[in-house]
Parts: sequence; C-alpha cells; structure tokens
Amino acid sequence: MMTKAEIVAQILNGRGRAPAAGGYAFAPSNIALCKYWGKRDEELNLPVTASLSISLGRLGSTTKLSLRPDSDVVRLDKKELAPDSPFARRIGAFLDLFRRDAGMYFEVEAVNTIPTAAGFASSASGFAALVTALDELFGWELDKRELSILARLGSGSACRSLHHGFVEWRAGTRPDGMDSYGERLDAAWPELRLGLLVITAAEKSMGSRPAMKRTIETCALYKSWPEKAAADLALLKKAIAEKDFHLLGATAESNALAMHATMIASWPPVVYWRPESLAAMQAIWAARANAVPVYFTMDAGPNLKLIFQAGDEAAVRGVFPDLKVVRPFDAEP
Amino acid sequence: MMTKAEIVAQILNGRGRAPAAGGYAFAPSNIALCKYWGKRDEELNLPVTASLSISLGRLGSTTKLSLRPDSDVVRLDKKELAPDSPFARRIGAFLDLFRRDAGMYFEVEAVNTIPTAAGFASSASGFAALVTALDELFGWELDKRELSILARLGSGSACRSLHHGFVEWRAGTRPDGMDSYGERLDAAWPELRLGLLVITAAEKSMGSRPAMKRTIETCALYKSWPEKAAADLALLKKAIAEKDFHLLGATAESNALAMHATMIASWPPVVYWRPESLAAMQAIWAARANAVPVYFTMDAGPNLKLIFQAGDEAAVRGVFPDLKVVRPFDAEP
Repeated sequence: MMTKAEIVAQILNGRGRAPAAGGYAFAPSNIALCKYWGKRDEELNLPVTASLSISLGRLGSTTKLSLRPDSDVVRLDKKELAPDSPFARRIGAFLDLFRRDAGMYFEVEAVNTIPTAAGFASSASGFAALVTALDELFGWELDKRELSILARLGSGSACRSLHHGFVEWRAGTRPDGMDSYGERLDAAWPELRLGLLVITAAEKSMGSRPAMKRTIETCALYKSWPEKAAADLALLKKAIAEKDFHLLGATAESNALAMHATMIASWPPVVYWRPESLAAMQAIWAARANAVPVYFTMDAGPNLKLIFQAGDEAAVRGVFPDLKVVRPFDAEP
Repeated sequence: MMTKAEIVAQILNGRGRAPAAGGYAFAPSNIALCKYWGKRDEELNLPVTASLSISLGRLGSTTKLSLRPDSDVVRLDKKELAPDSPFARRIGAFLDLFRRDAGMYFEVEAVNTIPTAAGFASSASGFAALVTALDELFGWELDKRELSILARLGSGSACRSLHHGFVEWRAGTRPDGMDSYGERLDAAWPELRLGLLVITAAEKSMGSRPAMKRTIETCALYKSWPEKAAADLALLKKAIAEKDFHLLGATAESNALAMHATMIASWPPVVYWRPESLAAMQAIWAARANAVPVYFTMDAGPNLKLIFQAGDEAAVRGVFPDLKVVRPFDAEP
C-alpha cells in the first residue's frame, strides 16, 4: 500500500520555487448527485465507485495561506481553532505532507460561505481551496488533475471541488490512485437550481468517514451498492446530455435514498434523518404529486438539497419559504 | 404454475362431511423478527426467504362462520363491510376456493383484538382464524401444516399464525408450495415482552403486497436481501436456543431496518416512517444508550413493536407511558 507522502513526492517531483508571500484560492462546494460511499483504500481515499457532483457556484471556501516560523495557526470563519481540535489536527496532518523542513509552519485562514459540518460538504471545498493556495504559495504550477489528486488525499470528495459545473470523479483502478480524480463534464445547465434546506446547522452526530466504514463493515445490503451506483452514474450522464430534468432529479433522489438505506441497514444503525428531515421529504413528494417538479438529495447529515429548475422556483419557494437557492452555473468562468 | 384451486383440491382430497351449523376459531397475530419480504410466486404467496415470528398470545382474530343461501356477508369488528370493499372482495375470493356449489355463501364475523390495517398484521390472524373455522364448519380435520398452507393462500404471513410462540415459516423449494408452511419452534421465553407503540391507527398509505412488489422490481439493494435474511434467521434461532436477549433484539431490529431500507431505496420510494416513527426510534436508541435493554421491529407501516424482557418493563414504560404490553407466552396451551 502506498502512503500519502509517496503520492505527494510523485506529483511534486521537484516542482516549485522559493515560497511566495502567500497563496489565496477559492473552491466551490459540491453536492453529489451520484454519491461517493465507500473506500477501497482508506489511506488514499480511493473510492469503491465513481461519483458525480455539481458544484455550488460561488458557495464554497476561500483559503488564505502564508508561512510562519513557529507553529501552525488555523482560523476558520475568523475564529482561531485550538491546536488540538479535530479540524486543526486534520489540517495540520495534511500540511505535514507539504512542509519543506521541520521549521516550516503555516497560517491558514479559511472562510466558508456555507454552514460548516452540517452536511454541506465544507471539507470538500476547504481542501480543494487549500491545495490550490498551496500551489500558489509554492509555485508548483500543477494542473487540475494533479490538484484534484492532492485534494483527495485531504478529503475524498474534495477532488470534485476543483471544477465548476458537473464533475465526475473517476474511481480509477490503480493502487496509487493516479487515475482517481475529478473531471469536468462538458455540459452546462444554467436553469438548474439547488435549494439548501437547513434542518439543523448543528454539528452532525457522526462524521461521514466512520459512517462509511461502518456501512462497509456491517451492512449486508451494501454488497449491491456498487451496481446501483454504476447504473445511476450512467443515467445521470444521459440526463445531463439530454437535459432530461426528471431523469436527473429522480436518479439523484433515488441514489441518495439508497445511500441512506445502506446506513439505516448498518449496525448499529446510522440514521442521519431527523423527524424534520422526513417531514421535508414528505412535503417534496406531496409537491411532486401536485405537479411541482422538485427532487432532493441528501448527504451524510440531516439536511436536504432540493433540485429544481428556474421556472419552478416560485412554486418550490411556496412550499419551502426559507430555502436558500443556489445557481450552480452562475460562477462559470 | 399451479393455481390456488389446485392446491386446495390436493389438500382437501375428498375430506369433509355435511357442513356443521357453524365454525369458530381464534388465531393469534404474529410479528416477524425475521421478515417475509418478497415472493417467489405471487399466486401462491411463496416467499423468497424463510422468516421467523412470535405470536401475540391472546391478541389476534376470532372468526365465526356459518352458511347462507344467497350472498356472502362479511362483518369486521361488528361492522358489515360493503360487498365491493377491498377487504370483503379479498375474503370473497378466498372463500371461492371452498364453496361446494354455486349456491353456497358464507356469513363471516371477524373480530380483531388488535387495530386493523395499522401494520399489526390483522390479515395474518384473520386468514389463520378463517381457515381454522372453515375446517370446523366442513369437518376436514386437517393438521396444522395443512391449515398453514391454506392460510398462506389467503395471506402469506397468515401461515405463521396457526401456532403460538416462535414460528418459522420454511421457504420451501417446491413449485406447489407444499413444503412452505409455518412450524412451531420448540422454545418458550415467558419473560419476553412485546410493546405495541401505535404511531397512528389510520389505514396505511400502501398495502404491503404492492410495496413488496415494487421493492423486488425496482430496488437494486434487494439483491442482497436474501443473504441478509438467511444470516438473521440463523442468528435468531441461536438467540432463542441460548435465550440471548441482546442477540435476539439486535437481530430483529437490524432485520426490520434492512427491510425498510429496501423500501426506502425503491422507486418511487416507499417510506412508511412518519416523523413520529423516527422520533420513537431515536427514543429507543437513547434508552439503550442509557442501559435500558429495549429493541424494536417494524412491519410495512409506521408503528413500532418494542422487544424487551419482563424485568425492564417499568423502565421501558418510563420512556413510553402509552405502550400496550403483550405477553406472547401467556396464551400457551
């Protein structure tokens, strides 16, 4: 099994120059329409299956980076994190991969424009922004594929946050994961809208990493997940190519429910749903029965992400007045 | 494929005498600890997997039966059903299998001691009581195995309601289903308690028959269900043999959650859970974290059935004051 440090050495391979004064980058959050659920390699975050996401335009993370002589400082949303907090330690361990000597420390200023740790994938945009800022700081001049692989080492789904629009994370087959990265699909869907429905902004009860691990280890139904994910990926690509909204929405919703089903059927059960999550699902099904074309997806948390088109925004807002509506294709380069 | 009428002819095989004045029978409800979920034969209600239930002692159905010259009359809980109501038609179609001539009609007086159609398996006890009453009326003198097969033709899980205590429904392999019937396990567990938690007594949104069909036809995860059911059946038999309460409870709960997971992952999704069901599950998990040994199972409906032991009844009632507590082994012959 390869280590992260070996992958980093292979990618950097002597690249870089004297560090610049700082690095700065933005990366969008992404929401998977076909989920990343299960790792074939825990160390390198290599997935069992391919996945497909849509990036959230201007919602995501910015990261400002500079060097410091003594110890790391991590600020998240303007608040300095205790050095022994889980997130600071996770960032520190990731930065260890890039220190040129034992006396090199970083000041990291991360700002999320989306609620942290409430199932809105801030670690994805956070690690994608961080590697892009590192690239600027050290002058590596890596391409998006290489940055995507580095971001994956921090958080699997981060490899999809290097691009706007629809992104496919190729599962790859190589043990070193050099063929497992995010690639932009050549497709735009400007009328597509995502609606963020915050059931709770509280920290979730269990991180997605242990939830995924427990599912693989204890859920008998997970054996059928790879086949389901492969079928859904093909349907989503067809839906995107043909701009078939109902196919897109139904496939994404079914994929998310199947992922939650594998958690529900794990032991002990992993149930991120709150009663309010279920009430929101029922409101969506009722709206659909009422001819409002709206679907949802959910990640490893209690919140819902609604999927609809611009022309139906008023009808969807009629059901969910507090919805935060995102235009994924607004921030297109 | 064989028809129900052919199976009935094979079993009755000239048995019986001139009808008595009437027939009367009681059959207990049963709650599956390892679920019946999926048919290999829709006509004969032959299951994909074996299942295992516990009968509810004195809770179930009584059926009083007599002959009438003109048309069928079906009374359920003292109320006469409209002849074209779904339940009256279902009973009528089942009775068609047993009429000796075109002018033979029945008066059926069924009384359930458990809420009808709220996921408490009243059709199981109902058909089991009905075939037993038919046996008395016609003097067939069939044994329990034969009655179980006849009851299965009315409703699959009814074949488990011919016995008290723990009952295994052997899946069988024969196309005619003559090896697919309920058998009593030679085991008693007098301290075992079931708690019926009624979330709603309203009719459920979808019957279990179409839900099962949709799951088999659309749920990719269902492919792994037979393996899960087989593993759970073995664990439950071990738990019963060794009186291992935690193994019994955890296996039953996991099996029920996995069954619901296959529905949740169907399309369109079949979600019997109500927000209150989810809140009750969370209360159970919180109680367990608090050292109260209580587990649950759920059927194709929103209600929960709690599983605990006599010594913990006060603690469980502390969490669920309105619980209806059943002593399954109280009605033992």
